[in-house]
Amino acid sequence: MTQSVDFLLVNALVLTMDDEMRQFANGAVAVRGDSITAVGEEADLRANYTAAQVIDCGGKVLMPGLVNAHTHVPMTLMRGLADDLRLDVWLQGYIWPVEREFVSPDFVRLGTKLACAEMIRSGVTSFADMYFFEEHVAAATAEVGMRAVCSQTVLKFPSPDAVSFEDSLAAARQFIQGWKGHALIVPSVAPHAPYTCTPEILRATAALAAEFDVPLHTHLAETALEVENMRRENGMPVIPYVKKQGLFDAKVLAAHCVHIDEGEMRTLLHAGAGVAHNPSSNLKLASGFAQVQKMLDLGLHVGIGTDGPASNNDLDMFEEVRLAAFVAKAVSNDPTAVPAAQALAMATRLGAQALHIGPLAGSLEPGKRADLIVVDLSPLHNSPRFRRDADNPYAQIVYAAKAADVTDVMVNGRWLMVNRELLTLNEAELTAAAQDYAHRMDVFLAARESSVFSKLVALGGSQEEESFEVQVKVKLEKPDGVLAALKKPEIQILRQRHYHQHDVYFRFDDKSQGWLRYREDETINEKGQIAGVRARLTLIGPSREGDFAHDVLLSRIRYFAPAANSLRFYREYFKPARETPVDKDRLRWLVRYKDEEFFINLDQVETPDIGYYLEIKSRTWSRRDAEEKAQCSAELTTLLGGSLENTVTLDYVEIAEGRQQVRPGIS
Amino acid sequence: MTQSVDFLLVNALVLTMDDEMRQFANGAVAVRGDSITAVGEEADLRANYTAAQVIDCGGKVLMPGLVNAHTHVPMTLMRGLADDLRLDVWLQGYIWPVEREFVSPDFVRLGTKLACAEMIRSGVTSFADMYFFEEHVAAATAEVGMRAVCSQTVLKFPSPDAVSFEDSLAAARQFIQGWKGHALIVPSVAPHAPYTCTPEILRATAALAAEFDVPLHTHLAETALEVENMRRENGMPVIPYVKKQGLFDAKVLAAHCVHIDEGEMRTLLHAGAGVAHNPSSNLKLASGFAQVQKMLDLGLHVGIGTDGPASNNDLDMFEEVRLAAFVAKAVSNDPTAVPAAQALAMATRLGAQALHIGPLAGSLEPGKRADLIVVDLSPLHNSPRFRRDADNPYAQIVYAAKAADVTDVMVNGRWLMVNRELLTLNEAELTAAAQDYAHRMDVFLAARESSVFSKLVALGGSQEEESFEVQVKVKLEKPDGVLAALKKPEIQILRQRHYHQHDVYFRFDDKSQGWLRYREDETINEKGQIAGVRARLTLIGPSREGDFAHDVLLSRIRYFAPAANSLRFYREYFKPARETPVDKDRLRWLVRYKDEEFFINLDQVETPDIGYYLEIKSRTWSRRDAEEKAQCSAELTTLLGGSLENTVTLDYVEIAEGRQQVRPGIS
Repeated sequence: MTQSVDFLLVNALVLTMDDEMRQFANGAVAVRGDSITAVGEEADLRANYTAAQVIDCGGKVLMPGLVNAHTHVPMTLMRGLADDLRLDVWLQGYIWPVEREFVSPDFVRLGTKLACAEMIRSGVTSFADMYFFEEHVAAATAEVGMRAVCSQTVLKFPSPDAVSFEDSLAAARQFIQGWKGHALIVPSVAPHAPYTCTPEILRATAALAAEFDVPLHTHLAETALEVENMRRENGMPVIPYVKKQGLFDAKVLAAHCVHIDEGEMRTLLHAGAGVAHNPSSNLKLASGFAQVQKMLDLGLHVGIGTDGPASNNDLDMFEEVRLAAFVAKAVSNDPTAVPAAQALAMATRLGAQALHIGPLAGSLEPGKRADLIVVDLSPLHNSPRFRRDADNPYAQIVYAAKAADVTDVMVNGRWLMVNRELLTLNEAELTAAAQDYAHRMDVFLAARESSVFSKLVALGGSQEEESFEVQVKVKLEKPDGVLAALKKPEIQILRQRHYHQHDVYFRFDDKSQGWLRYREDETINEKGQIAGVRARLTLIGPSREGDFAHDVLLSRIRYFAPAANSLRFYREYFKPARETPVDKDRLRWLVRYKDEEFFINLDQVETPDIGYYLEIKSRTWSRRDAEEKAQCSAELTTLLGGSLENTVTLDYVEIAEGRQQVRPGIS
Repeated sequence: MTQSVDFLLVNALVLTMDDEMRQFANGAVAVRGDSITAVGEEADLRANYTAAQVIDCGGKVLMPGLVNAHTHVPMTLMRGLADDLRLDVWLQGYIWPVEREFVSPDFVRLGTKLACAEMIRSGVTSFADMYFFEEHVAAATAEVGMRAVCSQTVLKFPSPDAVSFEDSLAAARQFIQGWKGHALIVPSVAPHAPYTCTPEILRATAALAAEFDVPLHTHLAETALEVENMRRENGMPVIPYVKKQGLFDAKVLAAHCVHIDEGEMRTLLHAGAGVAHNPSSNLKLASGFAQVQKMLDLGLHVGIGTDGPASNNDLDMFEEVRLAAFVAKAVSNDPTAVPAAQALAMATRLGAQALHIGPLAGSLEPGKRADLIVVDLSPLHNSPRFRRDADNPYAQIVYAAKAADVTDVMVNGRWLMVNRELLTLNEAELTAAAQDYAHRMDVFLAARESSVFSKLVALGGSQEEESFEVQVKVKLEKPDGVLAALKKPEIQILRQRHYHQHDVYFRFDDKSQGWLRYREDETINEKGQIAGVRARLTLIGPSREGDFAHDVLLSRIRYFAPAANSLRFYREYFKPARETPVDKDRLRWLVRYKDEEFFINLDQVETPDIGYYLEIKSRTWSRRDAEEKAQCSAELTTLLGGSLENTVTLDYVEIAEGRQQVRPGIS
């Protein structure tokens, strides 16, 4: 008496990828409904099962579909948007501004479908996603017919789909309630990372995931800097910190784990957490080398992920598996580390376990869902084939085969690709729609790139201030006279400061962009020690607004912002054509003179080494007021012992760049 | 007046990859005969050239063909033969035995054609090869129509094509004479590596290359061990050493250069040497991370190679370029290192310069040979395309595109692939013939794998010795009596030694294989210091040949060899099911007794800790002689104070493995 099934796939080298890594050289798989009924030798299955449809695999490999353990599928629409940049420049300068402008339900659905098409073509049947508007990722994925853990992102910053973390937490709850129990989608919550979430967010998301018994997906210990900051701010590395916040009350999927030690690995193991290793992303962003062999040796479920295609730039799991094996060998200085069979297990069974969908997917076993792929190892680049050793087929798939060798894909008992033809997606429509988005993003970024001003605005957090600055500057032989003159009764000192100022001026090919000045102010206390440092960024208009008598200048500072990032960041982001440093020691007084406030700067300019200068400065919004202040500034200059014969109209940066002072009437 | 050409390729995004990285968005290339006549905007070329054939590239990318800067193409036939092994096990245990058995002109021609098919499919137009029977590599390559630097290997060991280095040097000379001036092939000589060549070989090959003004191709500083050995043996690192041997009298192409410092890079630069960087191979064999960005910054011509497909396991330059960019970022902890444009330049212009064929290939420039490829960036995995920045197309090709996106390939003005169809090769024939070789190699290796004995023989250098060993062993309470008894006049001491012996016994699932013993003998001098160490490997037959009276044993040692490799090597090569250590302190005398020679061992066995034993041993070829010696051994035992009541018939390893002494008559 035979049992009836829907499909009997025969004439295949079956790689079950189960715990014992069983293979069937003349193998077969029986599928009924959404599940696998039997796996074994073809003769046995033919004897025991009657199939509505018998499918001849033509001697190809039949194996479980690959599991992409960490990605951000909608970001497929940003593939190649900007590359070869440091993480902060890439995120703050490109990805975040574009996300703020473009990410919407439509964007997310299109990006998801584009990604699904690419993943099906490369043999992926399940993936773990993390993005915004995750209900639309879930809906698009279910429509395509793939399996996914879909994780709604929660952050301490406003995001494209929420103005506060309370909003996104509420959205996550609603999303999980709505999708829990779906045949293909496992809803999940994603506190983005410890450094982008407050302890409160970590606790709330863990409680939410635990309440619904769904996975919690997050980024942990991706970069050395993250660990360093965590240690400095919280006195412990990343894993103990998130444990303290109760994160492991939930079933955690931890992406990256590049910079964790053995103790942290054991914590993850005991918490039953899965790890998603992302070799391409870790290399391309120079995050470091995860200790994959050690994690596997300890028994951790380590899957392999592509990460988002904006930082990879593809969703090719064949490439990713190969790279996981390669990198593990190189970093452990041991070519026997992570052999092919183990790498392929990471991309299948271990990956499914990392996603907490092990009972459903990751191996060909009776009772699991029918998520399977057919791989053709006959193309030239796989030739020849050795069959002596049980490891030969794994090595061939991992080290030689390509995504394009996948010919057929089934998920949950449904064919998504047959003979390399996608059955649930229209590629031409997807690529056309994606191209339309790319064009709009290009236009948006090109407009922004055209001006230093708009690039500065794009960073966010800056302030525009239409401030006229009236200034007289004179060269001094010695500073001593100024210090004595400041004791005169006409001058009332309101405040006094001492700084070392380190400026770097960025200059651009288009001189109409003006200068962008990066300044570090070191405050010097009475003992001569550095008491504090602040940095700010100032965009200085290209030309002065006008001159007054006695070379009193009216200049215009267009825009300024606290410099939250490093000089290196701004250099890579603004890409100046030239940089000029100016360093000086500045004594600065705020004084009252004739009922007006003025700043008096006594500068010793060290770079370039040009000696002492006295500057009188004041600010105003009114051009008429500026004229009065110009007159007072000239008086103050004389009062302080400066000679108006020695006025200088060049900025220090201009002197540093070699410009000569030109006086009217002298030529 | 327009000029007539053979082909005008139009409607392409032309990436010239020239020094200025010029691009033509609506570009065209004119080809006449074997060379490029013009490169520019389509409108300009259409105005100035009349073509026999105008080819519409359909908006695809038109760029120079890729240069595979280092490979061993015939090894394509060994792709996937054995993987995830350490270099020594892989070479000595698998590759060399198979090469000794199979490599022939036929093998080399077939492997070359198989490799050419794969390379053309992935957009490679030139490559640098190094192997045996190189004239057959050259002939097959020329027949296919690809460009190559073909390098005949010279070694200090016998090779598949030469019994001595003089032979292979003569063959190299003949090869160079025969092929010098060929339109596609640049003949070259390849001293394999400093550690496989004598100084004489290095000097002779450099002189040969210089005499004919052809490149010299070699492996330099691939592993840290190579550098360490070089420093120990010659007091300097690799590059100064080969410089001293006059290697840089020739135009050198140096593969790997993983472990070189900045001084060595400068030496290579001043010598005009090219470097071939092989990221897949370096990762897979865990050789290390080359300092690519530093080499490029210094101005070295660094190309990218796949290395042989036995250690990669493919010839996919798209993958290799991506990996070169990825690894450079990760190892320098800088995601801006080796950006896409630079990586692609390495795979084209810089690669051609590294091969010393820069004037012919590597960029699209008038006067260079027409080696070009057409790449389709429309497939899904490339979607969408950004066009804002001049770097966008490079990033797309390097980070997203795949080898299969190459649609058309021209070398030397001749089409080798059109619309993904190979015009000069029959893939079905090649893969069938390759499969036949693979089957024979599988049979050869499977036969060898079946016995420890044949695996030992396959390593080479071993000696078989059919030596019967007669042995009496008795347990002693204290060793003192033996030392006194040795002074008796009946015993003449011929020689005396003191050893610490560290044995590891390998046991296999199939017990009929016997034990394989790895022994390290430390010779102890009169001061108790270690005076020397030697290691040897002994295959011990599974069963004793017979017992004599008084538990005198006749055992048989089947096979022994000096152990040139480490315990780790043998462990990975023989893959024992179990290992048992035995450590002991041994005083050993060679004595004459009744005109026969005997060895007397006084052992203190430390692992397992089982105390003192006295062994009397002698060897013979004759069974009858053995019986006489057995009798004498029993007498000697008594003479030395041992009691024949205390004989032990178990080997130390058997005691260590927990076997109990079973005496006949006692049960």
